[in-house]
Amino acid sequence: MSKQQWMPVAPGVWRLTVGSPQGLTPLSWIGASPRTEALERLPQNPPPFDFSEIGLDENGSRGFVLSFPLDAEEKLYGTGLQFMRMNQRGRTRYLRVNSDPKQDTGESHAPVPFYASDRGYGVLVDSAAIVTMHLGSTMKRGDARDGQVRDRNERKGWKATLVSPRAEIVLPADGADVYVFAGPTLGEAVCRYNLFCGGGALPPKWGLGFWHRVPTLYSDSEALEEALEFRKRDYPCDVVGLEPGWHSKSYPVTYEWDKTRFPDPARFVREMDEHGFRINLWEHPYVSPDSELYAELEPLSGSHTVWGGLAPDYTVPEAAALYKEQHDKRHVEIGVSGYKLDECDGSELTNNAWMFPAHAAFPSGHDGERMRQLYGLLFQKMTDDLFRSHNRRTYGLIRASNAAASPMPYVLYSDLYDHRQFIRALGNASFSGLLWTPEVRKAKSAEDWVRRMQSVCFSPLAMLNAWGDGTKPWSYSEVEPIIRHYIKLRMRLLPYLYTAFARYKEEGVPPFRAMPLVMSREEIARAEAGGTVAGEGDILNTTDAAYGKRTSREWDDQYMVGDELLVAPLFEGESERNVLLPPGIWYGFETGDRYEGGRIVRVSADLAHIPVFVRDGAIIPTIPAAPRAPRKGETTPLQFVHFGTADGVGRLYDDDGETLDCERGAKGWWTAAVSRTPNGGYDARLSGPDDAAFAYGPVSWKLAQTSLPAE
Amino acid sequence: MSKQQWMPVAPGVWRLTVGSPQGLTPLSWIGASPRTEALERLPQNPPPFDFSEIGLDENGSRGFVLSFPLDAEEKLYGTGLQFMRMNQRGRTRYLRVNSDPKQDTGESHAPVPFYASDRGYGVLVDSAAIVTMHLGSTMKRGDARDGQVRDRNERKGWKATLVSPRAEIVLPADGADVYVFAGPTLGEAVCRYNLFCGGGALPPKWGLGFWHRVPTLYSDSEALEEALEFRKRDYPCDVVGLEPGWHSKSYPVTYEWDKTRFPDPARFVREMDEHGFRINLWEHPYVSPDSELYAELEPLSGSHTVWGGLAPDYTVPEAAALYKEQHDKRHVEIGVSGYKLDECDGSELTNNAWMFPAHAAFPSGHDGERMRQLYGLLFQKMTDDLFRSHNRRTYGLIRASNAAASPMPYVLYSDLYDHRQFIRALGNASFSGLLWTPEVRKAKSAEDWVRRMQSVCFSPLAMLNAWGDGTKPWSYSEVEPIIRHYIKLRMRLLPYLYTAFARYKEEGVPPFRAMPLVMSREEIARAEAGGTVAGEGDILNTTDAAYGKRTSREWDDQYMVGDELLVAPLFEGESERNVLLPPGIWYGFETGDRYEGGRIVRVSADLAHIPVFVRDGAIIPTIPAAPRAPRKGETTPLQFVHFGTADGVGRLYDDDGETLDCERGAKGWWTAAVSRTPNGGYDARLSGPDDAAFAYGPVSWKLAQTSLPAE
Repeated sequence: MSKQQWMPVAPGVWRLTVGSPQGLTPLSWIGASPRTEALERLPQNPPPFDFSEIGLDENGSRGFVLSFPLDAEEKLYGTGLQFMRMNQRGRTRYLRVNSDPKQDTGESHAPVPFYASDRGYGVLVDSAAIVTMHLGSTMKRGDARDGQVRDRNERKGWKATLVSPRAEIVLPADGADVYVFAGPTLGEAVCRYNLFCGGGALPPKWGLGFWHRVPTLYSDSEALEEALEFRKRDYPCDVVGLEPGWHSKSYPVTYEWDKTRFPDPARFVREMDEHGFRINLWEHPYVSPDSELYAELEPLSGSHTVWGGLAPDYTVPEAAALYKEQHDKRHVEIGVSGYKLDECDGSELTNNAWMFPAHAAFPSGHDGERMRQLYGLLFQKMTDDLFRSHNRRTYGLIRASNAAASPMPYVLYSDLYDHRQFIRALGNASFSGLLWTPEVRKAKSAEDWVRRMQSVCFSPLAMLNAWGDGTKPWSYSEVEPIIRHYIKLRMRLLPYLYTAFARYKEEGVPPFRAMPLVMSREEIARAEAGGTVAGEGDILNTTDAAYGKRTSREWDDQYMVGDELLVAPLFEGESERNVLLPPGIWYGFETGDRYEGGRIVRVSADLAHIPVFVRDGAIIPTIPAAPRAPRKGETTPLQFVHFGTADGVGRLYDDDGETLDCERGAKGWWTAAVSRTPNGGYDARLSGPDDAAFAYGPVSWKLAQTSLPAE
Repeated sequence: MSKQQWMPVAPGVWRLTVGSPQGLTPLSWIGASPRTEALERLPQNPPPFDFSEIGLDENGSRGFVLSFPLDAEEKLYGTGLQFMRMNQRGRTRYLRVNSDPKQDTGESHAPVPFYASDRGYGVLVDSAAIVTMHLGSTMKRGDARDGQVRDRNERKGWKATLVSPRAEIVLPADGADVYVFAGPTLGEAVCRYNLFCGGGALPPKWGLGFWHRVPTLYSDSEALEEALEFRKRDYPCDVVGLEPGWHSKSYPVTYEWDKTRFPDPARFVREMDEHGFRINLWEHPYVSPDSELYAELEPLSGSHTVWGGLAPDYTVPEAAALYKEQHDKRHVEIGVSGYKLDECDGSELTNNAWMFPAHAAFPSGHDGERMRQLYGLLFQKMTDDLFRSHNRRTYGLIRASNAAASPMPYVLYSDLYDHRQFIRALGNASFSGLLWTPEVRKAKSAEDWVRRMQSVCFSPLAMLNAWGDGTKPWSYSEVEPIIRHYIKLRMRLLPYLYTAFARYKEEGVPPFRAMPLVMSREEIARAEAGGTVAGEGDILNTTDAAYGKRTSREWDDQYMVGDELLVAPLFEGESERNVLLPPGIWYGFETGDRYEGGRIVRVSADLAHIPVFVRDGAIIPTIPAAPRAPRKGETTPLQFVHFGTADGVGRLYDDDGETLDCERGAKGWWTAAVSRTPNGGYDARLSGPDDAAFAYGPVSWKLAQTSLPAE
């Protein structure tokens, strides 16, 4: 075990350089400055272990191995967009980018080498290489004597997985910079990670409206016609996404408009804009031989091609400049709002042929493995820079990400489609500086359709992706009103959602949060002790469960939206479920039912409702459900809704909703406060800067509500 | 591309040493001598490419990359025990040992870095490290101009996977010995690989009888009682397997008998033997702290433990000696017949915690990754040596294997349980010097039960593994007679099966063979052209098949047993299917129906029958279905059954069936020939050595049969 020099690099953040790490890393590529002031405002506690307890084996047969001590009960969260479980303790996470992560190996669309502990600290390996994290999944010889070894013959007490006292992290052969983030809580460790990476993304307001992707090969007039259907049928919609077919050639792509389907793209984008729709363009990284970029990009590309298209090396500045210039001229300048950046994780679906291999060579000298791990980050950064150069915000979709991504205005998605996994991913994303959309494509039934549409309306990006199936929000006519209701409900909540994202940007607090970021280990344990919840158990000796079957209950099927709302989706086939409520009094957001929190409650809901809960004392800013989000310069009536009987304080953020002027001060934070008066009435006050942007008016109040009033 | 020195190392085998390969490899560990005489008898054609066409990139960013030219139509088979497909062309095979290979990545219980081409050659990388083979799954920049790039927008002709002109093999950083095996056919390339590895395994005769594994925690008397049930109920059985519970401690294990359940193991084994049953013992590699071996093995073990047990480094001769001595004294000397070597591939089931990690350190200096890749081979070789030291043959089960394993008397199995995958694996094993059992554990229905039991009776190891569920052959009483019939049919075919294995040993010909080893590419194409078979197609632009859905028909659901029988299993829910018949006339083995081969035929079968076909002119040696296989010194009546009307020549191998004396000449090959006489009768002759072991008599003949006569 060698001596380590852990250096403080920001408030509550320490770095150790192991070996001589080379080249490209997530932090260096994104290059955002840590939000030092916000970091300073967090409590300045050290991590819950001494740095001398961290082991570093430089003589291992596989390179560097770092080891961190683990408590017996400690839970570990993060490691990117994990679909299969929330607590990663006891698992080996092989953090390789994979477009088809169907097994619980750690492989992911976004394999972020960061985890956070419920003892209140986080660990990041800043590397573009594949990092393997053994998060309490390895036992060493000395450990065998600690009394855990039991005789399976005798059954009782035998565990398939022993409790390891350490996390072992295998670093790349050249080493890496490793960071430790202090808490003191899990949530603060995660905020600190986000702030160190530059804070969170703040989408433009239109990004929080409803999104619809039209089918592949649609023409300009078909897209416009479908968009106008939303207006006719009274469904809000802000963004229309174009899928394969708008490029002159796709798979691989040209990035040029198809002249037949889109003869006048500038006019099309303008016309859509006049009707209140932004245009989002699907693309992927592989450049068609027919693209105007091909000849110049060819010498700046990797040795291997994908679908016959170039895989450019965008770490070479000339290549990035070519991409940006063309995208600027063809798309951004004519008003396109952003991109869906597909297949930057390959499109393996069990076939590695749809990505360049790890041994591919690139002009920069980066190998195929590292290029692949960071390919999603390359596009996020390039496109964000491009929109920033126009003083415009973008918001889009990305199929691959990695560490340091919290400031990037991109939301992850997947070709997988399990609704439960989608909800789990929504929570898990919040541990790693990621955003995720449980996009809806089609459904097995009207019930499945409703349940999916309800949950996507409570997500970072509310989208119907109809590219392959042509579904519309009104496709299931028997449930049309339910779908319309929830899209409109999202529109009403825009100021609340926007404020939650502003906190993400400035304070690092994820707008959508998994339960362990909200409740402590002890609070969860107390709540579980009070109710009837399936615990963990091992079923031994059947061929269906040769190694024991764990039936642990993770609260990975519910999450918080901002500080005040808790969403507990129902899934096809369900009409009731258990919900873990944090301490305090809660109300059914639409039902008005009152619940004692700090326990597990059983709730039921008909198909027309998704269980959502609001905290006693919460103050939720709402606006009328418009067909689209407010634009820069528009003024919208605002209503603060106060729930329950407790005093409350709610925050409201605002700016122009579209530009980066907010980063130069053109923004404001307001406080809405409601307090009981001695005579049994309520005192409601809004305070904040007078001179800052405030796009709302008139302001009204609804006090002491138990459910959201109708518009 | 650097100069390569391909050296001839055996008839039709060339070797290239790339880099400076270090240490342990499959070939060096098994250490068998190539069967040079048999190799010389194969045709001596060169491979179908010039060695100068093989590329070697020593400057790649990932180490050494070898590339072999591929024809546009070329198909590639092998790469170990693959469950998901037969033709590996177009896939990247990541050849890492994995106990839970649920996705089509190449990971496998037996990740053999060997493939064979239908152009008639094979390629082996002799390495203990993980080898990645891109078998026509990578495209390079020049390739993009070859006209394959199509516009998916226009749909027609777009292919999800382009046809790559090369296989790229990524070698370990230290290099490796790479071998090329000549054909001229695919089948001969595979035989040559097997012969170079030392030939195939010849089981003892009892190994080809029926196997039954009793439930976990059974005592000696329970095991005996269950065994005697087989005799009472008239079900043949040769081997009884003991599962966890015979060790004094298990998970981890002691290798010592439990004194309560097995107070007198020697007497138990003897008593079972008197009733005609051999004992097979389950074990795994991880040594319990309570084992008598623990103290001595501890310093000879890896840094990491599994289930709290040691993972010994058996490449250290003292460690292997300790294992062998103890196993000899406790098991082999008292008559145990062999082992089921479990979990030597880890027991991941999506949790790497049940195996030592790749960074584990071992006393020999081999790293955890290489140790893990070869762990299954270590145990195969150690136990085979142990039985050989007693001049006894063993036959057993192994959950992990690798290259060079063809001489090892072990059959692979898995915790996975898909019947179609099990049949595919049976065929795929034949491309890589492996044997596989589609073991039966339990069933969803009586129909599923029958279909699984029928196919396991036509496999290298016919076993009911009841460890977890306690099923017996008679568990589904309504179908009991069918199960009994097929176990007995296997017993009748023992001389035929034994001869097929003898050819494996001496000529390298797999006893169970996938169709491409039997029919040429042209024969298969002609047969498909004659019938109605679903071809390949791409369905584009639906979210269920975003990258096109291939509907190719691989004939991976049928296989040959020896040269004369073709087995086409039915699966639950089916009563008919298509069968690809090689050219010539065929008969339903039990139905007598006549078929024209060289085409696809549609066959139906009731639940009582599995479709099996026999070649016109075949001569099948049979014996009466006894409760167990013949023992050394016993003489059994033999009947040659000649099918159809064509002249035929059949071979028969025999030896004592139990010892290794056959390797010192105590064996014989006989030829049974049937020819039509001018008067319309038949002339039947048996010829062969007079002085060799021949355990059969009297010999009788059944001529011109269209189906197998009743006993």
